[in-house]
Amino acid sequence: MSQAKAGVGIVGGTGYGAGELLRLLVGHPEAEVVSVVSRSKAGQVIEQTHTHLAGFYPERFHGELDVEALNQFPNQIVFLGMPHGQTSDALDKILPALDPKTSVVIDLSGDYRIKSEQEHLRHYSDVPYRKELRSKFVYGLPELNRKYISGSFLIANPGCFATACILSVAPVVADGYRGSIIFDAKTGSSGAGRQPSVVTHHANRSANMSAYKVLAHRHEAEIAEVLRGICDEGFETALVPHLLPAVRGIFVTTWLEMEDSRQAACVEEAYRNFYRNEAFVRICKHTPELQNVLGTNFCDIAINVRDKRVVVMAALDNLGKGMASQAIQNMNLCLKLPEKTGLWFPALGPI
Amino acid sequence: MSQAKAGVGIVGGTGYGAGELLRLLVGHPEAEVVSVVSRSKAGQVIEQTHTHLAGFYPERFHGELDVEALNQFPNQIVFLGMPHGQTSDALDKILPALDPKTSVVIDLSGDYRIKSEQEHLRHYSDVPYRKELRSKFVYGLPELNRKYISGSFLIANPGCFATACILSVAPVVADGYRGSIIFDAKTGSSGAGRQPSVVTHHANRSANMSAYKVLAHRHEAEIAEVLRGICDEGFETALVPHLLPAVRGIFVTTWLEMEDSRQAACVEEAYRNFYRNEAFVRICKHTPELQNVLGTNFCDIAINVRDKRVVVMAALDNLGKGMASQAIQNMNLCLKLPEKTGLWFPALGPI
Amino acid sequence: MSQAKAGVGIVGGTGYGAGELLRLLVGHPEAEVVSVVSRSKAGQVIEQTHTHLAGFYPERFHGELDVEALNQFPNQIVFLGMPHGQTSDALDKILPALDPKTSVVIDLSGDYRIKSEQEHLRHYSDVPYRKELRSKFVYGLPELNRKYISGSFLIANPGCFATACILSVAPVVADGYRGSIIFDAKTGSSGAGRQPSVVTHHANRSANMSAYKVLAHRHEAEIAEVLRGICDEGFETALVPHLLPAVRGIFVTTWLEMEDSRQAACVEEAYRNFYRNEAFVRICKHTPELQNVLGTNFCDIAINVRDKRVVVMAALDNLGKGMASQAIQNMNLCLKLPEKTGLWFPALGPI
Amino acid sequence: MSQAKAGVGIVGGTGYGAGELLRLLVGHPEAEVVSVVSRSKAGQVIEQTHTHLAGFYPERFHGELDVEALNQFPNQIVFLGMPHGQTSDALDKILPALDPKTSVVIDLSGDYRIKSEQEHLRHYSDVPYRKELRSKFVYGLPELNRKYISGSFLIANPGCFATACILSVAPVVADGYRGSIIFDAKTGSSGAGRQPSVVTHHANRSANMSAYKVLAHRHEAEIAEVLRGICDEGFETALVPHLLPAVRGIFVTTWLEMEDSRQAACVEEAYRNFYRNEAFVRICKHTPELQNVLGTNFCDIAINVRDKRVVVMAALDNLGKGMASQAIQNMNLCLKLPEKTGLWFPALGPI
Repeated sequence: MSQAKAGVGIVGGTGYGAGELLRLLVGHPEAEVVSVVSRSKAGQVIEQTHTHLAGFYPERFHGELDVEALNQFPNQIVFLGMPHGQTSDALDKILPALDPKTSVVIDLSGDYRIKSEQEHLRHYSDVPYRKELRSKFVYGLPELNRKYISGSFLIANPGCFATACILSVAPVVADGYRGSIIFDAKTGSSGAGRQPSVVTHHANRSANMSAYKVLAHRHEAEIAEVLRGICDEGFETALVPHLLPAVRGIFVTTWLEMEDSRQAACVEEAYRNFYRNEAFVRICKHTPELQNVLGTNFCDIAINVRDKRVVVMAALDNLGKGMASQAIQNMNLCLKLPEKTGLWFPALGPI
Repeated sequence: MSQAKAGVGIVGGTGYGAGELLRLLVGHPEAEVVSVVSRSKAGQVIEQTHTHLAGFYPERFHGELDVEALNQFPNQIVFLGMPHGQTSDALDKILPALDPKTSVVIDLSGDYRIKSEQEHLRHYSDVPYRKELRSKFVYGLPELNRKYISGSFLIANPGCFATACILSVAPVVADGYRGSIIFDAKTGSSGAGRQPSVVTHHANRSANMSAYKVLAHRHEAEIAEVLRGICDEGFETALVPHLLPAVRGIFVTTWLEMEDSRQAACVEEAYRNFYRNEAFVRICKHTPELQNVLGTNFCDIAINVRDKRVVVMAALDNLGKGMASQAIQNMNLCLKLPEKTGLWFPALGPI
Repeated sequence: MSQAKAGVGIVGGTGYGAGELLRLLVGHPEAEVVSVVSRSKAGQVIEQTHTHLAGFYPERFHGELDVEALNQFPNQIVFLGMPHGQTSDALDKILPALDPKTSVVIDLSGDYRIKSEQEHLRHYSDVPYRKELRSKFVYGLPELNRKYISGSFLIANPGCFATACILSVAPVVADGYRGSIIFDAKTGSSGAGRQPSVVTHHANRSANMSAYKVLAHRHEAEIAEVLRGICDEGFETALVPHLLPAVRGIFVTTWLEMEDSRQAACVEEAYRNFYRNEAFVRICKHTPELQNVLGTNFCDIAINVRDKRVVVMAALDNLGKGMASQAIQNMNLCLKLPEKTGLWFPALGPI
Repeated sequence: MSQAKAGVGIVGGTGYGAGELLRLLVGHPEAEVVSVVSRSKAGQVIEQTHTHLAGFYPERFHGELDVEALNQFPNQIVFLGMPHGQTSDALDKILPALDPKTSVVIDLSGDYRIKSEQEHLRHYSDVPYRKELRSKFVYGLPELNRKYISGSFLIANPGCFATACILSVAPVVADGYRGSIIFDAKTGSSGAGRQPSVVTHHANRSANMSAYKVLAHRHEAEIAEVLRGICDEGFETALVPHLLPAVRGIFVTTWLEMEDSRQAACVEEAYRNFYRNEAFVRICKHTPELQNVLGTNFCDIAINVRDKRVVVMAALDNLGKGMASQAIQNMNLCLKLPEKTGLWFPALGPI
C-alpha cells in the first residue's frame, strides 16, 4: 500500500468510538473522512449527534457506505463501530466492493477477535463463527502484532480491558511466566457506550463503585488466547472488572508472583526492554494516573516489587488506546505511515 | 386528627421519591409503613429495588394499596409518588376508600399544584383540570401554608425548584416587592428520576454543565402563582434551570433590585424576621453549600447586598426539602406532631 | 458499667472523624456531647468548622477536655480524633483524671493498634511503643473482639482499610486458610482528612485514578497481626491502596485461592455462618456498592467463586464503619447498650 | 514581525497556565519552546511537574529566562504565567533584554489588565499602577482588539470570567444597550490554580456548589471597563461567581432586559452578525455545554428570548479560551499567522 492520503469510511457512526475516530481524524494529515454511516440517523448532520465536533463535521450521515467515493482515493480505510453482533452483516455488504490490495477494514467490535471456535461461541454465542472469514482477521495490537497488521486487509481491534491487560503482562509471559495472573480492572462509564442504561445512570455511577461480570467477562477469553499465543507455559488468568465513578479511562492492577525475589527484581528492567521501541507505552517510575492518558494513545505502566510479589499497574483511555486511537495506529501501520501520525499529542492535564 | 402512630401507604413505590420516603420513615417514631405499591414490581422485595435500604424493607411491593390494613391504624397517610400525569387515576381509586377525617393524601407530583385553570392547562395539558377536586388540594409549603395544611385531606407537595425559589423571595414579596425576580437555578441529576435518559447519562452529566427549558420550565408558573398569593404588587419572574454535574441538590441564585440601597440594606433583617420561627430555614452568614443540606429537610439561605442590588442564594436537597422530607413535614403537621419529628438530623458532611 | 446516659468528650475536634462523631451523636439517645476540644480553634463555635452541623452544635471548642463536666455523668466516653502521633501526649494528660471503672477512651488514630513492637516501630517510628500502656488497649473490631471490648478502658479503633480487609477474610482465616491474600483496595479522598494536599486537590482527584504506598501501606501490618491472632496457618498478605475519584468509601477486592473447587464452593456459606449474628455485616447476593453503605455502619460483602478461585468484595464508609460509627459501636458495647443504638439507619441512596 | 518560527519562553512554568501552554505548543507548527522558567523548581525536569506531558518535555526548568537562546530566533514570545502580583518584577528583568520590534510579552495575570488607576488600585492594591508601562499594554481579546493586538509588544491576556462575560454581551453593548447586565457565573476548580486550598479540597468541591466573592469579584471591574470601551450608554453590571463541582470550564448565564420584545427578537441575529467572522465563537441553537469546549479555544454562546427578556449563555474552558489558548491566539496574531494555527481542534467529547 502506498503512502498517500487515504479515504476513510466509518460504519456505525453515532457511537462513542466513531465520535473519537472523527475527533482524531481532524488532526490526521494523511486521511480524509469520506463517508460516515448511520442507518438510524441517515441524512442528519454529523456534528448534531457528536456535539463536541461542532464546526468540524457539517456533513450528513449516509445511510450506506459510499464505496464509490472511497474508491476515488488510492487507499480505503473502513472502520466498523457498530455494537457487538452486527459486524458480520456489515462485512457481507462491504467486502465485495473493496479491493483487499488497497483497503483495510478495522472492526472495533469483539465479533472477530477470538480465534478458538469453542471460546468464541462460549462468549459470543449470537455471533456466527465463520471460520474462513475469521482466519483472515489479524488481532490489531501493534505492540505484539505489528508485522502482521501492516499487510493485513481485516483487523480485529482489541478490547479496552484486553489492551490494558495484555500490555500489562506480555513481557513476563514472553519470559515464560507460570502461575496466576490476577487482573483487578477498573473502568469508566464511557466503555458502556452512548446508550443510557442503569449502569451508566448518573445517580448510580457518581460517588459509587461496584463490580460486574465478576470472573465472567468475555475479555478474559480474548486476553488468555492472545497471551497463550505469546508463550504458553501454564499461567492462569482471572479478571474482575470494576465500575469507576469516572467517564473515561481504564486502570488495571495486575498481581503476579515470581518464583523468587531475584527474578522479581528483574521484572521492571524486562518491561523497559520489551517496550524500549514503543512510542505509546510509557514505563513510569511512579504510579500511573488516568489523567495522564485521557484522550491519548498512551498506555502508562508501572512495576512494583516486594520480595517475589510483583504488581503491575496500567492506565489507558478506553476510547483511545483501548479503542479509536489504537484503530488509527493500526491504520497508520497499514498505510506505512509513522505510527505516531496524528496521534502524537499529550493528555489534557487537569480535567 | 389525634396524635398517634399512623399507617403509611406509598403509591408509586419504585421512584427516588418513594426511596427517600422509605429511608426517612425508618427513623420516624410515629409512622409505620404498611403498603408500598408498584404495579410493575408487585410481589418483588422492596429492598431489592431500593438497594440502599437492605435490611430495612424485606417486605414486598403490593399491586394495589392495602387500604384495609391502613384502616387498622387511627390515621392513614398516603403518599403518591408516581410520575406526572398519573395522580388522577390513583385518586379515583383510593379516595373512595379513605375517610377524610382520619386520612391525608400527599401527592409528590405536579398534577394538582396549580390552581389557575389557564396556567394548569398550559403547562400540564395532559392532566385534566377537575375543578372541584383541585379546589380541595392545599399547597404543601409549611413555611407559608402551615395552618391550612394541618387540617387538610389533600396536599399538593411543592416542586423542588418551586420550594427553593418561593422560600428565596417570600419575605420581599410579602413586603410588596415590585420589579424583576430572576431565578438562576441549578439542579443535580436525581431530580430527573430513576429512569435512565440522555440527560442523566453519566458521560453527559459528569464534568459538564448546560441549561434546559430556558425561560420555559413549568415550575415557574407554580412559583408565580404561589407568590402572587402572598402579595401581588406587580413583580415579574423569570427562571432558567441549569444541569449540574451533581446528583442531589438544588442551588438557586435569585437576583433582585430594590428601590434604593437603604431598602436593600434592610432585606437580610427582613428574612431573619420572616423565618425566625422556622426550624428548617437557616439564614447563613456566608454562602450556602449543597453539602450542608444534602439528605436533610433544610433550606439554607444567604443574602448579599450591593447598593440596591440584592442577591439571595438558597440551597436544598431536591429529594429532601424539595420532595420527600417536606412531604413528611406536611404529614407531621397533619398528625399534629412537632414538625421536626423524624426530620431533625444534620447533613452527612463531606460526601 | 451501667446502662445510663454517658457524657462524651472529643479531643481533636476539628477533623473529619470528629465531625462524623458529632453528626452521629445528634441521633444517639444515650450519649451527650459535653466537651469538644480543639487547641487551634478553642473558643470558636463548633458548627462554624463543621458547617454541615449548623443548628446542632452552637457550643464552642474547648482548649482542654472538661473532665470535671464529664465526671458529672455516670460514664465518660472520650474519643481521640487527632492526627497520628499525638495520642500519647493526650493520654498522659487525660488518663489520670479518668476513672477506668466508669470511663472509656477510644482512639481513632493508628498509634496504639499494633501490638508487635517490631512491627509498630517499623510503621510508626515516630510513636513511642510504651509497652505497658499499649498492653491495655483492646482492638476495637466488634465482630472479632466483642467480649474484650465491652469491658475495656482503652480501645484502639481499627483503620479504615483494616476494617474492610479483616472483615473480608476473617471467616476463611478462621478456617485455617493458607496461601496468598491479595487486597486490591480503593479509597475515597476523605480518608486523607480535612487538610488540603496534593493528593486531595480537586483537579488531581476528579476524573482520575492512581495508587499509593503500593505494597507499603502500614494498615497491612495491622491487618496481618489481627488475622494471625485469629488463626495463623501460614497465609501471606499483600495490599495495594488505590485513590478513587470519590470522597467517601472504601471498596476492597480480595483475591483468594482455595485448595480445590469443592472448598471454594463452601466459602459463601461459611461467611453467612460466620456473620449470621452480625447486624452490620451484610452478605450480598450481588456486588456491593459504595452508595449502599455511605454514611452508615454497614460493611457489605459479596463472595464470587470460579473453580478454586474466590473473590471477596467489601464496601464500607471510611468515615463510618471505617472510623466514627465503629467507634460508637464500640461505645455502645462498653455501655452495655444494644449495638445498633444510634446506628440503625440506612444509607442515603443516590448521592 | 515576519511569519517565521518563533522562540517561546514561559516564566512561571509550574502553574496550570504554563502546563496548558506547553500542551498546546506541542502541536503548534510555528513556535518552539526554548526556555521554561521556575525559580522553585529550577533544574528539575519539566514533565515531572506536568506529568500529563510525559515524553514531550524532558528538558529542565531554567532559573532565569534564557534570553540569549530566545534571541537566536527571529521572534521572541514570552508568556508570563506567575500568580497575580509578580508580573512587574518579571517585566523589570526581561524587558531590557527584549527587542520590542521582534518580541511580544503576553501576561496571563491580572496585573496589567485594568487601565483606570482608581479601579486598578481598588482591586489590585498590592500591584503598583506604573502608568507609563501600563499604557503600553493591549488587552488581548482578539474578537474586540484584533487590530491593536497584532502590532503590540505587551499584551494583557484577559481573565477567564472576563472573556466569557465580555463575549456574552459585546454585541448588545455595541448596539447601545442600557440597563442591567447580570452575570451569573459558574467555574470549575482549576481556575484556582495548582496550589491545594480549602476551596479546591476534593471533599469540599465534589457533590457541592457554593458562591464566592459575591458582587465583589475583581473581574467585574475588568469586564465593565472593557465594555465601556465599546460603548457606554449607561448599562450596569453585577457578577456572582459560583463554584462548580467540575475541574475545567466556565459557564456564564447573562440576564438582559431589552426595551421591548421586538428589540429582543433581533438579538440572536445581532450576535450571529457580530461574530460572523470569528472562528472561535460558535453561536449555538441549543444550550452550550462545557463538554463541547473543554480543552479548546472555543466560546460557545446561545441566546434565549421571552418577551423583552434575553438570556445569553456562554461556555468556555477557563484554561483554554479563558487563558492559555487565547494567549496563543494572541501570539498567532502578533506573528501574522492564521489565528487557528495550532488551535484548530475539537473538544474531547465525553470526559
